Amino acid sequence: MFSYKRRVKYYETDRMGVVHHSNYLKIIEEARIKWCDDNIMKYSEMEKRGCIIPAASASENFLSYLRFDDPFRVEVELKKFQGIKMTFNYKIFNEDTEELCYTGESTHFFANDCGNERYLPYISFRKDFPDEYQKLKLLSSEV
Amino acid sequence: MFSYKRRVKYYETDRMGVVHHSNYLKIIEEARIKWCDDNIMKYSEMEKRGCIIPAASASENFLSYLRFDDPFRVEVELKKFQGIKMTFNYKIFNEDTEELCYTGESTHFFANDCGNERYLPYISFRKDFPDEYQKLKLLSSEV
Amino acid sequence: MFSYKRRVKYYETDRMGVVHHSNYLKIIEEARIKWCDDNIMKYSEMEKRGCIIPAASASENFLSYLRFDDPFRVEVELKKFQGIKMTFNYKIFNEDTEELCYTGESTHFFANDCGNERYLPYISFRKDFPDEYQKLKLLSSEV
Amino acid sequence: MFSYKRRVKYYETDRMGVVHHSNYLKIIEEARIKWCDDNIMKYSEMEKRGCIIPAASASENFLSYLRFDDPFRVEVELKKFQGIKMTFNYKIFNEDTEELCYTGESTHFFANDCGNERYLPYISFRKDFPDEYQKLKLLSSEV
Repeated sequence: MFSYKRRVKYYETDRMGVVHHSNYLKIIEEARIKWCDDNIMKYSEMEKRGCIIPAASASENFLSYLRFDDPFRVEVELKKFQGIKMTFNYKIFNEDTEELCYTGESTHFFANDCGNERYLPYISFRKDFPDEYQKLKLLSSEV
Repeated sequence: MFSYKRRVKYYETDRMGVVHHSNYLKIIEEARIKWCDDNIMKYSEMEKRGCIIPAASASENFLSYLRFDDPFRVEVELKKFQGIKMTFNYKIFNEDTEELCYTGESTHFFANDCGNERYLPYISFRKDFPDEYQKLKLLSSEV
Repeated sequence: MFSYKRRVKYYETDRMGVVHHSNYLKIIEEARIKWCDDNIMKYSEMEKRGCIIPAASASENFLSYLRFDDPFRVEVELKKFQGIKMTFNYKIFNEDTEELCYTGESTHFFANDCGNERYLPYISFRKDFPDEYQKLKLLSSEV
Repeated sequence: MFSYKRRVKYYETDRMGVVHHSNYLKIIEEARIKWCDDNIMKYSEMEKRGCIIPAASASENFLSYLRFDDPFRVEVELKKFQGIKMTFNYKIFNEDTEELCYTGESTHFFANDCGNERYLPYISFRKDFPDEYQKLKLLSSEV
């Protein structure tokens, strides 16, 4: 199982003393990009070749609370890959207590980076990135 | 229908040129707090009286993209209120084009602000805030 | 004196219970862009015409603390304009108490938006935006 | 020289394609807290014992631009320590190119975490944290 680890930053907390819930989408983005770097292709490279991967949807459960300096682990799993879209599952654990803090899911599509539109047009990922397409195909069939 | 309006801030965009998707949870928080201020009780007052309202879950669909300075409108609706929890629905529209940009939902519970726990303990909202309880009851039965 | 007003957002606070100090650069950006919209030219329009205005330097004093929902006022003043650079002064006041919370200064230059360089190249603002150049000239001589 | 290293996160960029300038105060906070953890005392522990260390002032120069995934190194140096206040210097380098991207300075004071005031009251750091006081004294005399 792929995992990504770090500690909670001071500025990620809010006046409740816990991580502001909007930050989990940032945290799982960090983890997903690392997953992509390790398993498919350097994400920054993919963008240089004209492919961006925006979020289409997300859902999240906030189960217990992370506080400043808590060490945590994000487990990332590719749940589905249908050629033009892919869906990831996430679990976040407090590494001190092994409590499950968060479960989430996000779906992304492959688009190109055309400057000024409200809709980011789909690209043919299969055609433009054949090797990466095969890797995703393989990884998604495993799960 | 309650609505909350403003424009996209520069710092809310990312290198794709659109609002970073994590910011929508901040935007709907602004709108929900304004809804609460107008319909139930000043949110800051509620916190002074010891009640915090953390998020338990959220789900979101990113339908079209908002860019810097785009004017938008968040429509907020109380979907459910079960005494210890409540669920809101959100729709965000681009006010220039009337396109629907975002649909979302979030569920919150009433807790007290005890400093150092990983779980934020539920309070009895009915007992501690009887007037506000009635207002929520009323508003939730209307929808 | 130009001023920009709003209230502190929940997500702008940190676990100290006050606005995280990094947010003041966002707040003065909002105020500066509004100043620019009102006095010089729609900022978003300026970017569409290829001019971006990055920060070159900033300095700040955090004098007293703003908390969630505090109403505040940012006073913005163009301090200097030398054709390729301009410097702004900011003061933030708590609108409930009239306390001065913050003083700051930021310097910006006019550049073009060439995608991949580490240095953002200066543009000739005088030549490319003659009318806006005159407005800035005038406003800076007044102060 | 103490240094702190990581890469630029996607969500730290703005529509210019570079790190939004407000994020540098977050980045140097991460680096300063790590410096404090390593040299003085676990920062989170200090807060548990009632001491918070807010920023009193900051100044920054943005020299060249960091983009998504750029590796960087923050060099942190204690510049001054006068018992109730301390000042740090920061330099950020792009680790790929060794370009200097940023120089900054921030001053902090030792306060206690009393909930609702606009002014955070100074504590006597010398009395409450004698060992940590000596360490800071020593480190500041070295530079």
